[in-house]
Amino acid sequence: MLGWLRQYRRGLLAGDISAGIVVAMMMIPQGMAYAMVAGLPPVVGLYASILPPLLYALFGSSMAQSVGPMAIISLMTAAALAPLAAPGSGLYIVLAAQLALLSGVVLLVCGLLRIGFLANFFSRPVMSGFTIGSALVIAYGQLPALAGADLPALHLPSALLGIGSLLLLLAARSWLAPLLRRLGMRPAAADVGARLAPMAVVIGATVLVASLGLDVRTTGAVPTGLPSLNLALSHAHWRPLLQPALLIGFMIFLISMSAAQALALKRQEKVHSNMELIGLGAANVGSALTGGFPVTGSMSRSAVNFAAGANTPLASVITALLLALALVAPTGWLALIPLPALAATIIVAVLTMLELSTLRVALRYDRGDALALVATAAGVLAFGVEAGVVIGVVLSMGTLIWRASRPHIAVLGRIAGTEHFRNIERYPAGTAPDVLMLRIDAGLFFGNVDAVNARVEDELAQRPSTRHLVLVLSAVNAIDTSALFGLAELNQMLRARGIGLHLAEVKGPVMDRLKASDLLSTLNGKVYLSTVMAWDELTGKT
Amino acid sequence: MLGWLRQYRRGLLAGDISAGIVVAMMMIPQGMAYAMVAGLPPVVGLYASILPPLLYALFGSSMAQSVGPMAIISLMTAAALAPLAAPGSGLYIVLAAQLALLSGVVLLVCGLLRIGFLANFFSRPVMSGFTIGSALVIAYGQLPALAGADLPALHLPSALLGIGSLLLLLAARSWLAPLLRRLGMRPAAADVGARLAPMAVVIGATVLVASLGLDVRTTGAVPTGLPSLNLALSHAHWRPLLQPALLIGFMIFLISMSAAQALALKRQEKVHSNMELIGLGAANVGSALTGGFPVTGSMSRSAVNFAAGANTPLASVITALLLALALVAPTGWLALIPLPALAATIIVAVLTMLELSTLRVALRYDRGDALALVATAAGVLAFGVEAGVVIGVVLSMGTLIWRASRPHIAVLGRIAGTEHFRNIERYPAGTAPDVLMLRIDAGLFFGNVDAVNARVEDELAQRPSTRHLVLVLSAVNAIDTSALFGLAELNQMLRARGIGLHLAEVKGPVMDRLKASDLLSTLNGKVYLSTVMAWDELTGKT
Repeated sequence: MLGWLRQYRRGLLAGDISAGIVVAMMMIPQGMAYAMVAGLPPVVGLYASILPPLLYALFGSSMAQSVGPMAIISLMTAAALAPLAAPGSGLYIVLAAQLALLSGVVLLVCGLLRIGFLANFFSRPVMSGFTIGSALVIAYGQLPALAGADLPALHLPSALLGIGSLLLLLAARSWLAPLLRRLGMRPAAADVGARLAPMAVVIGATVLVASLGLDVRTTGAVPTGLPSLNLALSHAHWRPLLQPALLIGFMIFLISMSAAQALALKRQEKVHSNMELIGLGAANVGSALTGGFPVTGSMSRSAVNFAAGANTPLASVITALLLALALVAPTGWLALIPLPALAATIIVAVLTMLELSTLRVALRYDRGDALALVATAAGVLAFGVEAGVVIGVVLSMGTLIWRASRPHIAVLGRIAGTEHFRNIERYPAGTAPDVLMLRIDAGLFFGNVDAVNARVEDELAQRPSTRHLVLVLSAVNAIDTSALFGLAELNQMLRARGIGLHLAEVKGPVMDRLKASDLLSTLNGKVYLSTVMAWDELTGKT
Repeated sequence: MLGWLRQYRRGLLAGDISAGIVVAMMMIPQGMAYAMVAGLPPVVGLYASILPPLLYALFGSSMAQSVGPMAIISLMTAAALAPLAAPGSGLYIVLAAQLALLSGVVLLVCGLLRIGFLANFFSRPVMSGFTIGSALVIAYGQLPALAGADLPALHLPSALLGIGSLLLLLAARSWLAPLLRRLGMRPAAADVGARLAPMAVVIGATVLVASLGLDVRTTGAVPTGLPSLNLALSHAHWRPLLQPALLIGFMIFLISMSAAQALALKRQEKVHSNMELIGLGAANVGSALTGGFPVTGSMSRSAVNFAAGANTPLASVITALLLALALVAPTGWLALIPLPALAATIIVAVLTMLELSTLRVALRYDRGDALALVATAAGVLAFGVEAGVVIGVVLSMGTLIWRASRPHIAVLGRIAGTEHFRNIERYPAGTAPDVLMLRIDAGLFFGNVDAVNARVEDELAQRPSTRHLVLVLSAVNAIDTSALFGLAELNQMLRARGIGLHLAEVKGPVMDRLKASDLLSTLNGKVYLSTVMAWDELTGKT
């Protein structure tokens, strides 16, 4: 904790300051926009951007992680609160903070239980599908605000402003960084500079609306001053908020971990998943205390933080201080930001989430993973973002178990004149009529034990002259309790038929385990160190 | 379908007839008892024992499977219906049949989708824990009926009858089979004969109550005649029944599959999981059509069927016909069966489910699995049988992912003077200062990819002089899309640090896959056929 502060060197300061300023300028429109996605007044997004990064700096593990509101978590917040209160109402705001509190507690408990391995329940294709589905839902949800259709009817000045902002942002996304480079900026600086386009567009739109006196919906009065430290709670809503808090806590962790891991690879750091849970838990409790809503580390914002020079969490501390300053200074201008421009920043931001490269790779590399990706995206679109999390876990586990249920098992034969044994389907290898050698190319566990036994049964049925079955376990890295029972049943069945069951090339750690069981003492055969030893003895060649 | 009938030989008939009779005599008290567990009038248990086995004989895959009411499925039925209607009421009976219909449809759909691999979502320790928890819940639930406490107060004649029956059944369980053997019966026949003790005790108790005119609650009027084919439905209850139907369908399949697999191993048969789904689906739709409730293949009953000589599903057909006969004949005596005696048969039946051998093995073999077993049993006791199913899946997957998050990775060194490379922690093997060789002992997938990368980072941090990293993939049976991305990121990170990334001993099927990706063409190093080739070239020895 705070190890980075104890080792702080002066040389790190310039980078941290520049990153702190850049992220603050990115955070003001983004925080307000993601509060809108969550169905909250925009100012709540600023409140949720001050204490959380400070607490993450204190407890978190990643050096360049930027914690605050994030599109998908805001969408999940809106989905969780929609059945309980009217968006923007007093109760809604209270419940948003309560949801952050519960999510924070869930994260803290998981961190204290040291169950950071939970992040591994989502495969990357499923995460990609989840992100794509969520991005589409978020973009679609912003169309009314973009076109001013949240006013009684479609509103021409709003629509023009919104679509104008959208086109400007899209243009900036493609051309601003190259332009800045051509103007002499270093590539990294140009990339960072281009990320300030949303702030520029928002300021431009605000000036335009104010100077022309356009009748466009704006963010509305933002009270000057910091959020007060208090926690209004609705005790009637603990139960209905619990399940959403579990799902949101899980996604907060997943999203933040993938950002932290990507940054750690670039910075040669170690990610401490349990510290990450504690840091995120503290950040969400902090968000709740200042009337905010669930927050997380975001990949896109953390990448900007990193690219802008962040060396330590001091960058986030500076960001938080600048946001606090913006709230303490006269906040009149914050009230004048037109919503269509904010909606445009949201739509352009989530367009970057519509990343199809994972789908492209999966289509070529593994159709099953590609199918899981598409099904998860479709699940989010059809059943919503909360169901999408469950669908994602089920599909991740489903592909895993489905693959396990078709284990690769090779019938081995001997390559003439050598001590090598190979798959007889791939190599011209010789077999013996009464000795069947099967190499199982998978760890044995509950997901494949019945499939393995069924496959053994098949092979035996095709070779009725078999008197000895040798399981070559060179590729079996582990045998769990279910598989131990499966092997014991196989042993019993073969014994009843007068067929010997032998094991060969059992790995050291697997053998250590098996010695703690009855399998070896009841085995209707022998354990051989090598396949060739089994072959020679069982075919009577020694 | 009906393959067994086309190949029927006369020699099979004697076994099928004897098994059919034995199971029918077991089924009459059992069916009525398990209807009680489900909160239904006992006669419903007989209705659910006629059409389901006939339909399973037509569509199912296992030869000796006996389909009908089963304790755990009855408990789940009671848990599903409890919030919707009063046990035994007209609506309750309608909803029980509707639940069977929905469960049957779920099973049929899964069978048509050919997703029989779903049975692999439960590890055996978790299944054992689930069974133990359910058995305790069922036994506890029968205590009032045993003691006549479902009458306004504890009722002495009922309690005496119930406890007497219980003691008789417990004595029979321990001593009847040895006694029959000593009387000259063959061991197998003695075991089967002992399974008729419940029928004998129920008949004895019925005669006792009737002759002494005891005031004990009995099963009540059983209408003479077969159940009529009709399907009363409550359209208001489709939605609340859907989730229970999914869970019950899953457990029906799981319980039936484990019985079918155990029998298949004994009979050298093949289990067709998708045909099993279809057979069970048809059986449950059949149960619904005759006013029954969810049914499944049961291990204990199927084992008796097998032991009593069942060669084909004809045994089940005979059982069904005998049960139909019992309903067509005067049914007056069925109405006089005292409930305390039936409760005693339930308690003794579920005692056999309190099987601790899996726990004993797991405690010695794998503490994680033992913990999952105990946690699942505790989950059923604390949160009920429906939550228990979900807890079981979560714990099965949880242990899997938890193990994956701690992959076994060995630093390899060369055994001097040989071409063998071994784990330097287990063998006196030499390493080179600038070449790090890591053997990954697990298939690479989303569950361990981050752990693998973190471990690589650790090893590199401990060996800052490393210029070449060789991943020895001899034990990697598969690489999924998530792991492919993980390797690409590792490659990119190492390239940025000027470290080469090489692969050695990539397996054939894994290599085939990798060729469909960009990894090999962007690899910052080479692919070596063997570890020694990588070593020789990278340490400059060739």
